[in-house]
Amino acid sequence: MGELIVWAYDWVPEGPRGFVRDLRLRWACEEAGLDYDVRTIPFDGRETNHLARQPFGQIPFLNDGDLEIFESGAGLLHLARKSERLMPRDPAGEAETLQWTIAALNSVEMVTVPWWFLRMGGDTDNKLNGWVGQRLGHLERVLGEREWLAAGRFTVADLLMADVLRVPDVRAYGDRPATEAYVARITDRPAFRKAQSDQIRLFEAADGKRTEAN
Amino acid sequence: MGELIVWAYDWVPEGPRGFVRDLRLRWACEEAGLDYDVRTIPFDGRETNHLARQPFGQIPFLNDGDLEIFESGAGLLHLARKSERLMPRDPAGEAETLQWTIAALNSVEMVTVPWWFLRMGGDTDNKLNGWVGQRLGHLERVLGEREWLAAGRFTVADLLMADVLRVPDVRAYGDRPATEAYVARITDRPAFRKAQSDQIRLFEAADGKRTEAN
Repeated sequence: MGELIVWAYDWVPEGPRGFVRDLRLRWACEEAGLDYDVRTIPFDGRETNHLARQPFGQIPFLNDGDLEIFESGAGLLHLARKSERLMPRDPAGEAETLQWTIAALNSVEMVTVPWWFLRMGGDTDNKLNGWVGQRLGHLERVLGEREWLAAGRFTVADLLMADVLRVPDVRAYGDRPATEAYVARITDRPAFRKAQSDQIRLFEAADGKRTEAN
Repeated sequence: MGELIVWAYDWVPEGPRGFVRDLRLRWACEEAGLDYDVRTIPFDGRETNHLARQPFGQIPFLNDGDLEIFESGAGLLHLARKSERLMPRDPAGEAETLQWTIAALNSVEMVTVPWWFLRMGGDTDNKLNGWVGQRLGHLERVLGEREWLAAGRFTVADLLMADVLRVPDVRAYGDRPATEAYVARITDRPAFRKAQSDQIRLFEAADGKRTEAN
């Protein structure tokens, strides 16, 4: 067993497959060439079966030797400290990577996830539409001017921002060619494709076990 | 002039005074005993007058010598690297502080800010109510069991989480005695009180200038 363990659910329904957030940590390990194992907790009972390890009942969390870290964003920044492939080591490159990583979490996802949540609840034309449009519009301008968010190269900030932007409802919001090219380019990386197919395969294998148990 | 400069608006209306996010960076500098200056950009025209420095048109951003960093969460983590008073230096304490800082941004504020946004728009009983209740309920359980979020001591994670939780609408959500005691205790810290009164005083001084200009 490696030092790094990514904790995921043992199964999810088809809808979220390929999008569950353990993918972020798998992807980062693949980009960095870090050895890691994936272990699972039961999807059934997830609201309460791991509150001691993740106080909001979510996944993923990460083990690194004796350390245990929850929040995918925190796991990514932790992994970025272990590999220059995820974050440059010069102060300016590190600061740029940090600011765009936090921007993905707190300026983009803070709007897009609740907007998507309202849409899933039936409010397809909800009151967060305008705010989503503003934030995505600012990003479109930025991505029209550069290939990568930070430091002139791929970083963990691109990994996270592309993961936030590739959600189908977000991707379909308006005509944003620079953003679409960015998402397509980054999700075509071999590390992403491996992480995504590994996640989907784990859930597919679990389908068989659930059928046998029923 | 010090090396550290916190950039804020030159004026805001009365409602948000004491809550604008440059307060987070002022507060962190006060806690850490770091010298800093505050400089301002015009509130009027803020949507477009500083997009080159903050791509979403927000404040604050931080200068540290040659570095410029936007996103209050990124600024806090940057300052935490400069002072052990904000984040312990042992790997476990650092990981705990990081995970709770990100939790404040991406598990709590990601729900409370859009909820508050809908309320401000007139939807006081909106579809994010239940989700807010779940997240705040989990936090109430955690805060009933410990005094500080991370590492058994005050860290930048407490600073940020308390700032997220002290928003009046959030503070008034349900009966959560452990959370209320936590917010009251942390916002009673001298560093918070100084940062808040400094922010309010800057805006009050600007009232006079605006009156003269009109």
